[in-house]
Amino acid sequence: MKQNRKINQVFAMITDFGFDFSVASMKALILKEFPGAQIIDVDHSIKQFSVLSGAFVIDKIYRYFPQLTVFICVVDPGVGSKREPIFIDTGNYKFIGPNNGLFHYILTDPKVSYSSWSIKEEFRSVRSTTFHGRDLFTPAAIEIAKGNFDIVQSIDKEKLVLIPLLREDVSVITYIDGFGNIKTNIPFKDEFKKRDFLNLNVSGAHHLVRVSHTFSDASKGELLCYKGSNDTLEIAANLASAEKILNAEVGDSVTVEE
Amino acid sequence: MKQNRKINQVFAMITDFGFDFSVASMKALILKEFPGAQIIDVDHSIKQFSVLSGAFVIDKIYRYFPQLTVFICVVDPGVGSKREPIFIDTGNYKFIGPNNGLFHYILTDPKVSYSSWSIKEEFRSVRSTTFHGRDLFTPAAIEIAKGNFDIVQSIDKEKLVLIPLLREDVSVITYIDGFGNIKTNIPFKDEFKKRDFLNLNVSGAHHLVRVSHTFSDASKGELLCYKGSNDTLEIAANLASAEKILNAEVGDSVTVEE
Amino acid sequence: MKQNRKINQVFAMITDFGFDFSVASMKALILKEFPGAQIIDVDHSIKQFSVLSGAFVIDKIYRYFPQLTVFICVVDPGVGSKREPIFIDTGNYKFIGPNNGLFHYILTDPKVSYSSWSIKEEFRSVRSTTFHGRDLFTPAAIEIAKGNFDIVQSIDKEKLVLIPLLREDVSVITYIDGFGNIKTNIPFKDEFKKRDFLNLNVSGAHHLVRVSHTFSDASKGELLCYKGSNDTLEIAANLASAEKILNAEVGDSVTVEE
Repeated sequence: MKQNRKINQVFAMITDFGFDFSVASMKALILKEFPGAQIIDVDHSIKQFSVLSGAFVIDKIYRYFPQLTVFICVVDPGVGSKREPIFIDTGNYKFIGPNNGLFHYILTDPKVSYSSWSIKEEFRSVRSTTFHGRDLFTPAAIEIAKGNFDIVQSIDKEKLVLIPLLREDVSVITYIDGFGNIKTNIPFKDEFKKRDFLNLNVSGAHHLVRVSHTFSDASKGELLCYKGSNDTLEIAANLASAEKILNAEVGDSVTVEE
Repeated sequence: MKQNRKINQVFAMITDFGFDFSVASMKALILKEFPGAQIIDVDHSIKQFSVLSGAFVIDKIYRYFPQLTVFICVVDPGVGSKREPIFIDTGNYKFIGPNNGLFHYILTDPKVSYSSWSIKEEFRSVRSTTFHGRDLFTPAAIEIAKGNFDIVQSIDKEKLVLIPLLREDVSVITYIDGFGNIKTNIPFKDEFKKRDFLNLNVSGAHHLVRVSHTFSDASKGELLCYKGSNDTLEIAANLASAEKILNAEVGDSVTVEE
Repeated sequence: MKQNRKINQVFAMITDFGFDFSVASMKALILKEFPGAQIIDVDHSIKQFSVLSGAFVIDKIYRYFPQLTVFICVVDPGVGSKREPIFIDTGNYKFIGPNNGLFHYILTDPKVSYSSWSIKEEFRSVRSTTFHGRDLFTPAAIEIAKGNFDIVQSIDKEKLVLIPLLREDVSVITYIDGFGNIKTNIPFKDEFKKRDFLNLNVSGAHHLVRVSHTFSDASKGELLCYKGSNDTLEIAANLASAEKILNAEVGDSVTVEE
């Protein structure tokens, strides 16, 4: 097997572990094999077990990275169950994680072509199962970064899991940050900017929300909505948490009504 | 244009974004141009929109960094308004950020000489405005790190914005950390150490505060003050949050009374 | 003095500082001497002043790192007192920190041999004492990484401080993460898995806790226990904080009763 290690191979991590020492053990393993690696913490504050939030973050971030970046993605409510560890290769980017919908946006993007692989049983079975991030996904990512594809085998594309909620083309809350600011998957239309207020329906409740990204335009505790950094509709509150005001959770439905 | 890229060019980031995936997109762009870059997260937990806290952190940290470090500084309540993106060059250190007071301490330090530049309109206008940290300040920092000064033009020093509050030489709360410990801009005098208690006036309320850095000297919930890591007066509480006890916010006045 | 600097020398940091700019000043100093260093934030969210949690994290993480990694460990309730800064060298790994029990597990591990050193008074006395992490421990770690052992002198092993609580072979809560999940130092026995529930005694109160790592097995707010990523017993709660439910703190006793 020919190996061709990049000196500054980039690894990017997306997990729901929180930023504590469990993440460091994954980095430590990488440094043993890639002493000059660039390891980027994309986000460890994904809402725990929210595959939807994880999928959203992966989709919004990966195109900014250098080609051949290896993404280690672990948001895994099914740890311990039989869901397969997979490897999705778009040619430009490599993604390793559980087959649970985390790669929904990549798999359904008509502009992206990819090959799909599962980690072989023989690679999995010899490993501890106590912490898959460290004991399975990171070692697999290291082998793949080294160009060792002996550890994977092809998997049929129809076996790749998508997120059922997103297949219905619904619009939902996809992410809530530490300030309580809410991101959605609703593309922000130019016409929204022309209005003073949008009539938002969040989980069945109606809210007339000011269209502005200038927080000081709103009174204290007032909601605002605007075009977020990913060109989608975001909802925040001036000096307050939109999450708390709306009692919102990732996955809740959001629509813009006329 | 001659370019001279350092292999391990250091970039240091100071923002109020919180540590989530928006920061990672900025790092990803840097790695495309500087594969061996050292990217240091100085602080992403600056109180949101607190230019004062951002300015304080920049001043207290930059001298520890290697020469030619490029600082990307984004605490920007005026995002979307007309405030200019600027570049301050002290020769040893390079700072990129909004012209809103964030560089107050550097600009007013009699021991520091600097040149001042604004990012040219032609560089700005072709860029998305949805997320200036990623779409404007980081690309500008990358060009400057590459030695491409074609993107900037000189700006008059009298146009550089300072923080009005600090020009009156008042003493204020400059930073509150995650534990509720309070930092101020009051130089800690040797004579403070000789006293058992300091009479502190915080936003008009008087507090007799024990002078000690040994938390166990105080009873549970008792306030303490001491010489902080930046040689300024800090206020904490034993097993409690000084922020909550004093109902304190960044910018509140603090004075030591006789 | 012969110096032999590794290009990608690994430094790993374990502190209770929180992740703010005080940590960045330590990294900045390292980059001045080791421009290609790999600096890993193992954990800055150790419970403040909890030497027990710090010792637990160090023990659970260090073996994953490349050989010759230098660990900078600062959980230091005695800052300002006379406790000595020490250097423990296992041959494979180097640890710098206060002599206060932080290296308990390394010093008492029958499989580990080590040499023990204290930082010389002449190295300490010329330094600021306002922030030992930046002004003492990091500079010492840099010298040791450079191979400059002139700054240390041998220290008798009987002078090395252990954690009294752990010498009695008690089982305790060693770590609580940001989700309120509780780690203990109780080895998870295979027989635990065969039971549906464990009878846990936490600080004298009895709790019948479901044995399962599948959160959805439990009702909302119900406690679960399982084999954690370090092969020890962990306690969590479905969609809730086990820390709050049990009113638990690091150091509290935990036992599995028949």
